[in-house]
Amino acid sequence: MLSFENDYIEGACEEILRRLLETNYEQLPGYGQDRYSLSAAEKIRGACACPVADVFLLSGGTQTNAAVLAALMSPYEGVIAAETGHVSTHEAGAIEYTGHKVLTLPQREGKLDADELNNYVNRFYADPGYPHMVQPGAVYISQATEYGTVYSLRELEVLSAVCRRHALPLYLDGARLGCALAARDADMTFADVARLCDAFYIGGTKNGALCGEAVVFPNGAPAHFFTTVKQHGALLAKGRLLGVQFDVLFTDDLYLRLASHAVDMAERMERGLRAKGCEFYVDTTTNQKFPVLDAEGLSRLEKAAAYTLWERLPDGRSVVRLAASWATRPEDVDLLIELM
Amino acid sequence: MLSFENDYIEGACEEILRRLLETNYEQLPGYGQDRYSLSAAEKIRGACACPVADVFLLSGGTQTNAAVLAALMSPYEGVIAAETGHVSTHEAGAIEYTGHKVLTLPQREGKLDADELNNYVNRFYADPGYPHMVQPGAVYISQATEYGTVYSLRELEVLSAVCRRHALPLYLDGARLGCALAARDADMTFADVARLCDAFYIGGTKNGALCGEAVVFPNGAPAHFFTTVKQHGALLAKGRLLGVQFDVLFTDDLYLRLASHAVDMAERMERGLRAKGCEFYVDTTTNQKFPVLDAEGLSRLEKAAAYTLWERLPDGRSVVRLAASWATRPEDVDLLIELM
Amino acid sequence: MLSFENDYIEGACEEILRRLLETNYEQLPGYGQDRYSLSAAEKIRGACACPVADVFLLSGGTQTNAAVLAALMSPYEGVIAAETGHVSTHEAGAIEYTGHKVLTLPQREGKLDADELNNYVNRFYADPGYPHMVQPGAVYISQATEYGTVYSLRELEVLSAVCRRHALPLYLDGARLGCALAARDADMTFADVARLCDAFYIGGTKNGALCGEAVVFPNGAPAHFFTTVKQHGALLAKGRLLGVQFDVLFTDDLYLRLASHAVDMAERMERGLRAKGCEFYVDTTTNQKFPVLDAEGLSRLEKAAAYTLWERLPDGRSVVRLAASWATRPEDVDLLIELM
Amino acid sequence: MLSFENDYIEGACEEILRRLLETNYEQLPGYGQDRYSLSAAEKIRGACACPVADVFLLSGGTQTNAAVLAALMSPYEGVIAAETGHVSTHEAGAIEYTGHKVLTLPQREGKLDADELNNYVNRFYADPGYPHMVQPGAVYISQATEYGTVYSLRELEVLSAVCRRHALPLYLDGARLGCALAARDADMTFADVARLCDAFYIGGTKNGALCGEAVVFPNGAPAHFFTTVKQHGALLAKGRLLGVQFDVLFTDDLYLRLASHAVDMAERMERGLRAKGCEFYVDTTTNQKFPVLDAEGLSRLEKAAAYTLWERLPDGRSVVRLAASWATRPEDVDLLIELM
Repeated sequence: MLSFENDYIEGACEEILRRLLETNYEQLPGYGQDRYSLSAAEKIRGACACPVADVFLLSGGTQTNAAVLAALMSPYEGVIAAETGHVSTHEAGAIEYTGHKVLTLPQREGKLDADELNNYVNRFYADPGYPHMVQPGAVYISQATEYGTVYSLRELEVLSAVCRRHALPLYLDGARLGCALAARDADMTFADVARLCDAFYIGGTKNGALCGEAVVFPNGAPAHFFTTVKQHGALLAKGRLLGVQFDVLFTDDLYLRLASHAVDMAERMERGLRAKGCEFYVDTTTNQKFPVLDAEGLSRLEKAAAYTLWERLPDGRSVVRLAASWATRPEDVDLLIELM
Repeated sequence: MLSFENDYIEGACEEILRRLLETNYEQLPGYGQDRYSLSAAEKIRGACACPVADVFLLSGGTQTNAAVLAALMSPYEGVIAAETGHVSTHEAGAIEYTGHKVLTLPQREGKLDADELNNYVNRFYADPGYPHMVQPGAVYISQATEYGTVYSLRELEVLSAVCRRHALPLYLDGARLGCALAARDADMTFADVARLCDAFYIGGTKNGALCGEAVVFPNGAPAHFFTTVKQHGALLAKGRLLGVQFDVLFTDDLYLRLASHAVDMAERMERGLRAKGCEFYVDTTTNQKFPVLDAEGLSRLEKAAAYTLWERLPDGRSVVRLAASWATRPEDVDLLIELM
Repeated sequence: MLSFENDYIEGACEEILRRLLETNYEQLPGYGQDRYSLSAAEKIRGACACPVADVFLLSGGTQTNAAVLAALMSPYEGVIAAETGHVSTHEAGAIEYTGHKVLTLPQREGKLDADELNNYVNRFYADPGYPHMVQPGAVYISQATEYGTVYSLRELEVLSAVCRRHALPLYLDGARLGCALAARDADMTFADVARLCDAFYIGGTKNGALCGEAVVFPNGAPAHFFTTVKQHGALLAKGRLLGVQFDVLFTDDLYLRLASHAVDMAERMERGLRAKGCEFYVDTTTNQKFPVLDAEGLSRLEKAAAYTLWERLPDGRSVVRLAASWATRPEDVDLLIELM
Repeated sequence: MLSFENDYIEGACEEILRRLLETNYEQLPGYGQDRYSLSAAEKIRGACACPVADVFLLSGGTQTNAAVLAALMSPYEGVIAAETGHVSTHEAGAIEYTGHKVLTLPQREGKLDADELNNYVNRFYADPGYPHMVQPGAVYISQATEYGTVYSLRELEVLSAVCRRHALPLYLDGARLGCALAARDADMTFADVARLCDAFYIGGTKNGALCGEAVVFPNGAPAHFFTTVKQHGALLAKGRLLGVQFDVLFTDDLYLRLASHAVDMAERMERGLRAKGCEFYVDTTTNQKFPVLDAEGLSRLEKAAAYTLWERLPDGRSVVRLAASWATRPEDVDLLIELM
């Protein structure tokens, strides 16, 4: 059966597997000090046009979010996020587990609105009781968002300006950063992200790697972040596993090429479904699409492919998520469209 | 240059790499629900002769220790460990970070002594002030220990009996469990470990895998341990990476065969060095050896091979650690001996 | 100047001060083992008609909430509260600091709605992704609420039934429990609270004591709760300070008599203000009143008395909070009315 | 029966009780903003000759230690303390509960040795593996110590210099600071403590107050320490209770006069017991004495007075602790001596 259930159903891209094989017997130091991790960091600094950035490779997204946010904030601070932000809902309370409240704002197609953020912070400090409350200590956004939408360059600039006005570090969860940068209407580069954020991660797991996320601190990492990573259990002994993967992903633009393929496949899917009269819950330009299906449509989909049920609408129809990835084949997309 | 610096300087064993390639394009569910993770769990239950065991695959040792111990203990409890236990010293305070004190006892060649443990617990509860103190909530041991030594079956039985008498869960850190079971004088099996411990992990990273540790709860996991793993950031989206590796390692006894090779290589090294008059700091039968070298010896080693400096002795000599692994080649061991 | 700013602007009631003097030189054991703490606990058990209850005396509300909730929940669980619940907003993240998310539901005049709670829990477990999310582990309500409103007996019964259906411990923050039980329309007793909740506290600080809150576990405390209290820094060496106060408060119904006085004074204030045409933001029957004032009214109040600014309404008017207490004098209330 | 069980068996000194009565009906703001708290802070700054110090009043010692240490350290840091330090053993893991390891050094009559501290830190950073370990982030000492001993001015100067060389904040737990400054051989003042420490607290509970400890940050508090105090549940709504007490204690040198009395009573006790041939476990000059008793002596003591059993010696004798306080009467001391 076809599967568009998510963007991590396959293993790794060929280039990564090949390189893991080639380097397998090299004897390398552990914990991210190997030559591949160092080279990957250098290439990422280059891609970000940010020669002073500190780069760390961690094994997964939840631990990355928890470690970075714990390092950016004081214990009495919380992180502001959209109510649909991954840290707000789908990380089993990893942020709270390390002592920090997630302060939620409404989501606007999965995004934080800069004005609402600004008003929130202003209102917070206007309340004379604020020293009895969790102080905003960082801002979390995802790019692309959990809804597959993207912040435009202009939106990110405005958000970044609000954060800087309030001295709030801006942290961008880039689990799907590749697709955000490769989206049809993308107007942003790694360098823009590095210029506008105080910390972000470039997701490997959902863009062709077996595992791994690359954390970037454009202006240098918080003190002893290596120890923070270790304390969070996020440090692999065989750091080479992450180093080799990111070194490959940042060679010859592979990272963006993989993402472009995923976006192309998703666009192909959307075009095909729209041609058959399908509506979409939200307009996205990345690798995730959210068709709205009635009972009959859902039943057809169930026979055709694996998918994720996103939400039941009050009118009885269902929103589903269909994801494409670096590994999605055009013929599978076409077959899906045919079967629907 | 040669390297005996540790047991994770190479990548993964051939069988694992091959299987990762073969299964790469299978479309599999995430988070450990893929067929390989399920099969690995089943094989591990078989190896442990423990059909009701719960098995979880996590990406690294520190997070495994933190997640398991947090799940086994109440917030007011601490874990008893040898002062040289990995959780006591080399995990950047991961246990304390999640709220639990590590209660240390003296190490005896890296091991906890059952009598000392028993006395400690008895003394603790005899102190009328004990409700003001951290209560012992679990016992942590490593097998093999950080010193390369092993608990005998008899020792583990006695320790287990002490723990059960005091209703203390016994948790065994098996980062190097393979070598402990494959040691020259080993008299223990996976089934013994499962019978005598309440939780343990079978280390992959240091025995041929790219990453990954398999946690076993012989009598069933604490409630919602899956969520605990997620909360600790220890859950890989592509759980297949761990599933495939452990499925391979537990096929045709590969796990123990790899460990046997490591132990053989270490024995070969010890024999060779002893023949040249070398003394050892502690007698070990696993893959780690601790020669004591004078200045001249150390200088020779420095030219010959990468190693880990363990300790400076008061008499000016140095203890070094030389580790063999599944990947160590006999000719490299022989060359080392020749060069020393 | 008059002050109705809150219900803790004065010291302690006469009876408490007198008893502290009388018992001052008795030599008593520390940490709550003194005869007054034991007697207070016994009297509270009596008032609650709950002979098997465990009672602990802690020094303040925030630490009480944090200690009790940490003891009731597993680390992967969060507490459900109204978005206006004290734990949600005004405790500087004390709950998150100890690792637990506060899961918020809308407030209905400061209260949790039983149907909304039930739906929330049902929806939570209907989502197949729930093991990736913070699991509901307890329910927090305040009685009276932060808005001065009270749950009726019927409302509490329904809420309790929902909690029991879902095996969720129900915890009641009784910082102002006295006023809730003494309210004009109150139809509930300590015994009802003890029957319907799994844990609650009887607030001393806001009802005539210098400090102190009495935690009641009607069916027995979580294991080693004494140690939890110590670990949270909530255990006073001179436990007598709390013991004497609660022993006095639970002698001859003093606790409820003090609360009745506070409620009477608040009612007198409301009647007077209504007679002068004042509107109220929310109908309350306890010691807190929330008049809505236009600019002129606010200006008059500012000259007359200290108050708490609660909220600015969109129409430009202001909601203020005026609180009465055990110490409020009728002549001060009358003077306020006159001045408004 | 007599009691020398500890130094918190009575209530509060007369001066405090009287002032609580006199100020009881003043209407004062909460949370430490009342005039008495402000005045107490000012007087403490004066006593410390430290006009820029920040002063906070908290309700108990364990929460004070936890809040201050959490504010002084980064999450990846631990606090160095003597193995007998109160934070190491008798606070139910409050420090670990907030994420920090207590790094223990041997005690020398209850004290940290400056050379051992210096060596520890040097050794720590000489270990190339230190980024995998908990980094020293603060130093904790008690003055007087848990053994009743005191650091001399010279000892504190040397310790402070070691801390400053390593940029480690020095925190002094002054639960019994009064007795340390009032000891027979005391050569130190509040101003010395303020000059040599980065944070310390002046204990009220064990020196005449009902509860309360005054935290002093001679060079200013960590950012938003008020919120930290709230988050730790250590902020009393009726801050006046602490303010009035410390205002009284720091008027006319009452704090030191109470401590002098306690020390005098303890000296009287020691002289009397020595005259009857009694040995002491450790030489102390403060309010705690540790006589060594054989079975007969212990039996006599048991009939005469309440005491604390400290330790059983290998030779069968017992070490007991006898404490004097501000409230100890000379006739009771004389009676004890007579009965022994």
